[in-house]
Amino acid sequence: MLTIGIVGAGLRGRLFADALEDQTGVQVVGFAEKSPGVAADAATATGLPVVPGIDDLLTDHDPDAIIVATPDFAHRGAAVAAATAGKHLLIEKPLATNLDDAYAIADAVEAGGARCLVGFENRWNPHVVRAHDLVASGDLGSPITSSATLSNSYFVPTQMLSWAAASSPAWFLMPHTLDMLMWLTGSTPVTVSAVGSSGVLAARGIDTTDVVHALVTFADGSTANLTSAWVLPDAGEGIVDFRFSFIGTEGSIAADLSHQGLTVVSDKLRSEWPLGASIGRSKVGPPRWMVQQFAAGLLDGGEIGPGVRHGLEVTKTICAIEEAMADGSSVAVAEMTPAGAEL
Amino acid sequence: MLTIGIVGAGLRGRLFADALEDQTGVQVVGFAEKSPGVAADAATATGLPVVPGIDDLLTDHDPDAIIVATPDFAHRGAAVAAATAGKHLLIEKPLATNLDDAYAIADAVEAGGARCLVGFENRWNPHVVRAHDLVASGDLGSPITSSATLSNSYFVPTQMLSWAAASSPAWFLMPHTLDMLMWLTGSTPVTVSAVGSSGVLAARGIDTTDVVHALVTFADGSTANLTSAWVLPDAGEGIVDFRFSFIGTEGSIAADLSHQGLTVVSDKLRSEWPLGASIGRSKVGPPRWMVQQFAAGLLDGGEIGPGVRHGLEVTKTICAIEEAMADGSSVAVAEMTPAGAEL
Amino acid sequence: MLTIGIVGAGLRGRLFADALEDQTGVQVVGFAEKSPGVAADAATATGLPVVPGIDDLLTDHDPDAIIVATPDFAHRGAAVAAATAGKHLLIEKPLATNLDDAYAIADAVEAGGARCLVGFENRWNPHVVRAHDLVASGDLGSPITSSATLSNSYFVPTQMLSWAAASSPAWFLMPHTLDMLMWLTGSTPVTVSAVGSSGVLAARGIDTTDVVHALVTFADGSTANLTSAWVLPDAGEGIVDFRFSFIGTEGSIAADLSHQGLTVVSDKLRSEWPLGASIGRSKVGPPRWMVQQFAAGLLDGGEIGPGVRHGLEVTKTICAIEEAMADGSSVAVAEMTPAGAEL
Amino acid sequence: MLTIGIVGAGLRGRLFADALEDQTGVQVVGFAEKSPGVAADAATATGLPVVPGIDDLLTDHDPDAIIVATPDFAHRGAAVAAATAGKHLLIEKPLATNLDDAYAIADAVEAGGARCLVGFENRWNPHVVRAHDLVASGDLGSPITSSATLSNSYFVPTQMLSWAAASSPAWFLMPHTLDMLMWLTGSTPVTVSAVGSSGVLAARGIDTTDVVHALVTFADGSTANLTSAWVLPDAGEGIVDFRFSFIGTEGSIAADLSHQGLTVVSDKLRSEWPLGASIGRSKVGPPRWMVQQFAAGLLDGGEIGPGVRHGLEVTKTICAIEEAMADGSSVAVAEMTPAGAEL
Repeated sequence: MLTIGIVGAGLRGRLFADALEDQTGVQVVGFAEKSPGVAADAATATGLPVVPGIDDLLTDHDPDAIIVATPDFAHRGAAVAAATAGKHLLIEKPLATNLDDAYAIADAVEAGGARCLVGFENRWNPHVVRAHDLVASGDLGSPITSSATLSNSYFVPTQMLSWAAASSPAWFLMPHTLDMLMWLTGSTPVTVSAVGSSGVLAARGIDTTDVVHALVTFADGSTANLTSAWVLPDAGEGIVDFRFSFIGTEGSIAADLSHQGLTVVSDKLRSEWPLGASIGRSKVGPPRWMVQQFAAGLLDGGEIGPGVRHGLEVTKTICAIEEAMADGSSVAVAEMTPAGAEL
Repeated sequence: MLTIGIVGAGLRGRLFADALEDQTGVQVVGFAEKSPGVAADAATATGLPVVPGIDDLLTDHDPDAIIVATPDFAHRGAAVAAATAGKHLLIEKPLATNLDDAYAIADAVEAGGARCLVGFENRWNPHVVRAHDLVASGDLGSPITSSATLSNSYFVPTQMLSWAAASSPAWFLMPHTLDMLMWLTGSTPVTVSAVGSSGVLAARGIDTTDVVHALVTFADGSTANLTSAWVLPDAGEGIVDFRFSFIGTEGSIAADLSHQGLTVVSDKLRSEWPLGASIGRSKVGPPRWMVQQFAAGLLDGGEIGPGVRHGLEVTKTICAIEEAMADGSSVAVAEMTPAGAEL
Repeated sequence: MLTIGIVGAGLRGRLFADALEDQTGVQVVGFAEKSPGVAADAATATGLPVVPGIDDLLTDHDPDAIIVATPDFAHRGAAVAAATAGKHLLIEKPLATNLDDAYAIADAVEAGGARCLVGFENRWNPHVVRAHDLVASGDLGSPITSSATLSNSYFVPTQMLSWAAASSPAWFLMPHTLDMLMWLTGSTPVTVSAVGSSGVLAARGIDTTDVVHALVTFADGSTANLTSAWVLPDAGEGIVDFRFSFIGTEGSIAADLSHQGLTVVSDKLRSEWPLGASIGRSKVGPPRWMVQQFAAGLLDGGEIGPGVRHGLEVTKTICAIEEAMADGSSVAVAEMTPAGAEL
Repeated sequence: MLTIGIVGAGLRGRLFADALEDQTGVQVVGFAEKSPGVAADAATATGLPVVPGIDDLLTDHDPDAIIVATPDFAHRGAAVAAATAGKHLLIEKPLATNLDDAYAIADAVEAGGARCLVGFENRWNPHVVRAHDLVASGDLGSPITSSATLSNSYFVPTQMLSWAAASSPAWFLMPHTLDMLMWLTGSTPVTVSAVGSSGVLAARGIDTTDVVHALVTFADGSTANLTSAWVLPDAGEGIVDFRFSFIGTEGSIAADLSHQGLTVVSDKLRSEWPLGASIGRSKVGPPRWMVQQFAAGLLDGGEIGPGVRHGLEVTKTICAIEEAMADGSSVAVAEMTPAGAEL
């Protein structure tokens, strides 16, 4: 029996618990959640123990693995504690939102010696999986260039996330698209340039950027173009606009997850993502499949997905994007190292 | 441990075996397959025993359940034998392609007393599930009318199916759309009218209809419009064109499974269905989820899906469509009874 | 100088006047409009004379041509008077909503000897024109089957048309799709069957059918499937849902005019038809191009479009659809003759 | 009668002649074409005089206006000669492909005193017109950010254009999208950064870039993201991929001209642009409407469209993009001045 503790009993923590509920050989032993209200809700809804912090979770339940499902900027504490205790880890993306945290987590994971998955859930997203398999097959030749847009309507920064001002479209959304393009191309970012703007969300009291566009050159010579905005109108098709394209020397892919062939009109028109939380008795969808594979891989030693070094690379690239946006210059990803670190 | 035998080791039988491979508590004990070539392939590929017929399968392995994955018109023998032996059954759609067979199977299943699922796999198809859930929620009001198109390119009748001339667009495709509309509306067909034509496939040596259009009135007063063709050009987006719409008194749905937001160009342009056979370690997609739920439901008594009486109703409706197409008249589904049966 | 009078100063009459405004050699001499309010509006907006009826228009202005832009059911009076006076005619579709009117108009036009265009404007609709040219090129082979949906949201019967109860989805919408399929296939309807329902619009005080589905067999052996509804939700993409498909022996067409690649979100999400009323200085769009060609053809003897016998055939087919829907039987179009007519 | 001479009797020159053929008050007096083969074809097909160069055209016919429809890089000679002779000008986009030429043309036009339209035909493209009207209405608020992709399949650089190596995706395609975004936002580019790559076309013998991505900041504080590639697979939907989006503070637009709702399958699948060259008797489409408005505006003094200073601004921006792509730095558009010019 694999025992798992979950840090963060919000939307995502609860989703992971649900996904693991019926998995053979797996037991979620409890949550750590510092908000009393969220903790009480989770306890009532799941019947699982909820303790205040990671230390309680480790002390009380000594689980085999820890899932870190706290806000973007709040991964370090739980991740380092769990890693140091030798626990396997699933850490939500981004690994961290600054270089100090990211390196600290990576170092702790490597010192602790256990396994670590950074939660780039699009590796379990059917459109992305299919695109990856096509590129990997060689049928599309080698990469020339890619584009990816992943944006949200105002709902996400103004209503869904209480901590939006401590994140940004770059930190909340681009980890997904950067990871995806790194997976598709099998290459890594070398330089970035970026532009963006702020003011619209700030006027609504959320002090963060409205939109960021980034250009990326990859080690294989290919290029990419990424856009993420948090200012899509709420009257649109949904809260997520996700599309990407890939051009290879022998073929191309265009994906638009905002239009998956299911349109519903009731009070308003919306394009639905057909894949909900369950189909019959199967619990489905990218984050559920991700955590199920994490648990299965821990049980039998199989593949669990992208690790902490990859998560570190994504965080470094977004740090470079933020710097490029501020400076108007092109920034080398390799220069992104913590203050005081030896290069 | 639930043991399952599969009759038919073709495309579908093999797919079901694959889907059950890692399911806890389930064991596929072997195939029955009368074609020596297909049998040899299946034995090599799966390592499972392959016997010639249903009787051998019952005698040799005495499985708890039988999956009937033979051609459309060839369900009766295996289904009646297994039902009579008290085995649980998953029978591929359509239940049968004539009333005699359909009633014989239904009677045997009910006499045998075991459980039976007729394989209307679209009940595990994400677009259909989501549409069903929306209609069932009441948000779209009560049904006014629906339309459904499910067609194939020439590839299916001319290359994929060796027995296309013994089936038709009505028998091979409309069970899916009829079942879906019955599920969406929660109602049953009362009368049908139909037109169609043949000649194009016949000129290619496949003596069956090219296209059939059917109008259906339902018991709840709503109407539907169904189209199935086997003459789509092979240069198109794929081998399946599947779309449907539903109009309720408070809202509507439009679904187009041929455009799920993933387009690939290599040697030709094609719209891909993003959901392949597996995502990470999970075996996914409508038929896999269906057979997994069948097995899980047999293990713990849970819901397994639409039964033999529903399959019979669909077969009766298609018999009525075939008669309406031949006669040019409107035909009552209730009149569809086997020759010699008491009404 | 070609002089034109317009009967009906509503939406469509005004649109025609606008479309002809800058055409060299053409002069709109005035409107006939029986509603004093509509007449006053038109006089103010256009500066053109507005008289109460067709007789005044003929007497006062003696135009070379008359455009009949009255409601669906109210074409006979103006059309017969103008035809009898030897005037060229553009009569809006449908030619008439009953056989008596349709035959009376056709007879008057043929007795009068002038030219007549029935306003099937989709012959100037870019998607339809392109589809027609492709079929006519022979590249798609000969017709096997077609489908066409043309529906409106509640707005049209409940707000846009004051006379919706005197028309229906069959009379208001199917003339477009029937004409289109006759043009695409170059063939004519032989038999029809139909189902439909009413009750939802009736509950809103509009006593007409909600939806009609019709199956059509054509003289060339091909079939078609037509749907028109007046009960689409108003929260949808627009007031018109228009799509059609054609399958030929060598290729196929799928058209969806509701999704022409332009989506706008402001207060709500809507798919826009990109072609508005004008582009730069050109007055564009199907009805404008139609009436411009009508005038140009009268000036120089060129082609003006589908004539009164074609309009009569469409009206007969819709009469047959209405009868089929009422009877549940298949109806031969050829049997549609006015009461008392010799067959 | 307005007389017009056309320099360049290739695809575009012939198209303009065709578009003007029936326009009242307009006469195309002849072509200048230096290629004897192209000249002979044009003479045969149109019956119009074809002379070798702009000087012959001016001498022989002394037209009121000149249309410059030569390759991207070959506008200067004809444009300066015609401008100097005081002729009105329609110059194809881009105004020029280097700053020297662009300034020389702009200076000559302003010295000559006649009117000048630079052929940014998307101002007559229905999707763009509609988008512009929506933004201009204020309903979408003020601009936050935009994206535009305009790319071609290999066919364009390798087969359609004999002079592709002397142009690039930036020069051939981005004038359209830059002009469009300047028109939509009503603002002008301030800085650009860009990445791109080459090698794939070079390997096919066309020594130019394969793809360019550019980020632009505008004077109003908004940003934009532009992509143009010449390496789309030829098996795709057509030779042009054109899509754009706009996010304003109160709403958004998404346009995809590659999917205008018309799909055809014959030998291959393709998405067609429904608007062909003519509808009935009307000659339609962006370049035809543009040249018709040019002629009409010259006749009556009406608006003709974007002038030479705007064309110069677009050329400067693309020069900045080329420099940014080479340098990896952000480049100020205002710094783009001809060598030796006073700043």
